[in-house]
Amino acid sequence: MQIIKQYIEENKQRLLDELFDLLRFPSVSADPKYKEAVLNTADYTAEKLRAAGADNVEVCQTAGYPIVYGEKIIDSTKPTVLVYGHYDVQPPDPLELWETPPFEPTVRDGKIYARGACDDKGQFYMHVKAFELMMQTNTLPCNIKFMIEGEEEVGSNNLGIFVKENKERLKADVVLISDTSMISMETPSLETGLRGLSYLEVEVFGPNRDLHSGVYGGAVANPATILAKMIASLHDENNHIAIPGFYDDVVELTDEERKALNSAPYNEEEYKKDLDIAEVWGEAGYSTMERTGTRPTLEVNGIWGGYIGEGAKTVLPSKANAKISMRLVPNQTSEKITQLFTEHFIRIAPPYVKVKVTPHHGGEPVVTPTDSVAYQAAQKAITEAFGVEPIPTRGGGSIPIVALFEAELGIKTVLMGFGLDSDALHSPNEKYDIFNYYKGIETIPLFYKHYAELSK
Amino acid sequence: MQIIKQYIEENKQRLLDELFDLLRFPSVSADPKYKEAVLNTADYTAEKLRAAGADNVEVCQTAGYPIVYGEKIIDSTKPTVLVYGHYDVQPPDPLELWETPPFEPTVRDGKIYARGACDDKGQFYMHVKAFELMMQTNTLPCNIKFMIEGEEEVGSNNLGIFVKENKERLKADVVLISDTSMISMETPSLETGLRGLSYLEVEVFGPNRDLHSGVYGGAVANPATILAKMIASLHDENNHIAIPGFYDDVVELTDEERKALNSAPYNEEEYKKDLDIAEVWGEAGYSTMERTGTRPTLEVNGIWGGYIGEGAKTVLPSKANAKISMRLVPNQTSEKITQLFTEHFIRIAPPYVKVKVTPHHGGEPVVTPTDSVAYQAAQKAITEAFGVEPIPTRGGGSIPIVALFEAELGIKTVLMGFGLDSDALHSPNEKYDIFNYYKGIETIPLFYKHYAELSK
Repeated sequence: MQIIKQYIEENKQRLLDELFDLLRFPSVSADPKYKEAVLNTADYTAEKLRAAGADNVEVCQTAGYPIVYGEKIIDSTKPTVLVYGHYDVQPPDPLELWETPPFEPTVRDGKIYARGACDDKGQFYMHVKAFELMMQTNTLPCNIKFMIEGEEEVGSNNLGIFVKENKERLKADVVLISDTSMISMETPSLETGLRGLSYLEVEVFGPNRDLHSGVYGGAVANPATILAKMIASLHDENNHIAIPGFYDDVVELTDEERKALNSAPYNEEEYKKDLDIAEVWGEAGYSTMERTGTRPTLEVNGIWGGYIGEGAKTVLPSKANAKISMRLVPNQTSEKITQLFTEHFIRIAPPYVKVKVTPHHGGEPVVTPTDSVAYQAAQKAITEAFGVEPIPTRGGGSIPIVALFEAELGIKTVLMGFGLDSDALHSPNEKYDIFNYYKGIETIPLFYKHYAELSK
Repeated sequence: MQIIKQYIEENKQRLLDELFDLLRFPSVSADPKYKEAVLNTADYTAEKLRAAGADNVEVCQTAGYPIVYGEKIIDSTKPTVLVYGHYDVQPPDPLELWETPPFEPTVRDGKIYARGACDDKGQFYMHVKAFELMMQTNTLPCNIKFMIEGEEEVGSNNLGIFVKENKERLKADVVLISDTSMISMETPSLETGLRGLSYLEVEVFGPNRDLHSGVYGGAVANPATILAKMIASLHDENNHIAIPGFYDDVVELTDEERKALNSAPYNEEEYKKDLDIAEVWGEAGYSTMERTGTRPTLEVNGIWGGYIGEGAKTVLPSKANAKISMRLVPNQTSEKITQLFTEHFIRIAPPYVKVKVTPHHGGEPVVTPTDSVAYQAAQKAITEAFGVEPIPTRGGGSIPIVALFEAELGIKTVLMGFGLDSDALHSPNEKYDIFNYYKGIETIPLFYKHYAELSK
């Protein structure tokens, strides 16, 4: 522990500078115009893995963005940890809401503001630096493998193929991921579940051209109005999702599970104040914790149609679009939900419009075991670093790869995240506390120490 | 009549070339980035009025875009016609749907394709050229005044002030406007009414920042979803507008009026085929002709919120917007409807969002008399030029200025439009048939002839 603190202390500035260099790459995987930046980020990541001491570092090409691999095998009889992370980031839009440029990391009040600061550059890079630390201090007690991808924010489309084709190379005893949040630095937590995802784009087509709303208004169905009516019908008056069969596979929590979940600290007044909302919203009969952690949801991520420029245009648009995603809970599958949504949306389309539904990507929900050696090692590491035991929580987000690992490699995952819900992931002014960054680099080697010992 | 045809024949190409020059100005009044082009269009219009023989031509400055005035007073004892038109045009968006550039007029199959080709450059310029024709052939039988504005597509905000301040200068016996359509060149028609307009922009505010839809989805109201629900509620299951009091001032048509209106040629199969829709849509209990001509309507002209870029972004947007306009029928007033909408929209907003309603502009509905000397002159002119009597119709569009003229100058308007509903006004690939352009220049002098005779 002393060695760790000392190493971090001696390299404090460099550890931060390197992260800043990483954050300056606008590695937005969703938008083709950033392609070169995404590729450069992969090269930078590989270079840093090599510098940290990894062997067989490779920028592995895929049909999409490359996957960066690197490893350090110290003793084949020792347990092996596979570290997963992603170097791509969400689009920075809406740009005008950023206080400082998204790709010019800026420190304010002890926090690093930049797109990807927390999700996931700041978090995966802690692992690269913790690995360097263990190499430099000769304290690496396990074998380690890194797999850092560049398509997590767009559905990890090529990762599945890569994993299937590299089962031997990726062989490990546990997957370690830092891409989630803690309740707070005073109340550390470990996520024991993640929601799945089904993301689709819908199009509603009306007349074959934009029309004059005076000449045709009132006589021709307006796709924007019809889309609004269709979206409105997707939640009933209790905010249950009104797609037949949507909840069929959902397993209700036991009273004990609900009790445990709701015991996590949550202050509704602070929650509302932080978001500046008068009331929370959600499915009747469930708490906020349950709504985000254990219930499936349906959200409109984007909607557009007609004239959205300056001033007024009296047009009846010829089409309207929406991006809609659903978060899934254990036992639901992305494929089935995508199919149910698609069939339902087409079924409820009125005769005066045509609709098209295009699936974007999906991921399966997961529950990680809390009785495994790896989970216990994470518990001990956090307890040692934070001085208090972590609370198990259910995360609302999705990391499709977790279910994939279990299916393809037959190994479980430990979600040791150091972010905070207030880090504004996917939002303007995303941030990551410098404290959390160093704390992560401090905690990770302790995980390896305890994991090696408990595995004996 | 012979003189007219001959003059047009001898100047055929020039009459077209001048219109093309006019169409090349991107005079989009809604978008500030076109400001210089709009101003240049005013100057070009003034120059052409002078060249045609108008006196006292002036580009009259206003708080917004200028109004071009010009006149020819031949004899104060003769009747005076005030010609109104507008040199501004609708935005060309969506640009990608234009087959040829909107501001590079192109002839295909006898039709001029360009933004403003019909609305209203092609139509008001017929009057400038018909005036030139009467001047050159010494056949102008009345006094004539031109008032061509540049803010019709954004609500004519400064025209009212101009009219109030120039009552003496604008003194006339009738207003003549070509900014509407005919059923077809085989079935000419004269519009005897126009709908009013109330145009607003609504904003629905949720959380103070875009949120991660996994971390917050299901627990915080999504403004895009709420906006969809609010818009969906604005029409009931019979497509009646569900705003309390909305129909209070609407005067139902008599059976005779409905019969006359529905006697106009209308082929639903062709109508659907032209728009490529499977079914028409609208208020239960009314025909398409009635829905567009005599009933008030509510249309979403634009809607947007969240991530609308390439690919996927799992965001819960912090706000969503829509542009909504309502067409009004006689006895409704823009001010009252704007107020009813605003109060209703704020009233139906659920507690977990904030809403803002901003009125854009409005205009009052009008009915033009069919028993006036001017209307009869128009009837005779069209009958003479087309060889068949025009059918009276009700237009669905709005020309706010018509009601203003009646209120401020106490004179009625004749709506002698030569466009077609298929001209794609406000849409990509707006067009105007060359035949209609020449036919208009041929018909207008006949109107003056008959108007002068009938006024004796």
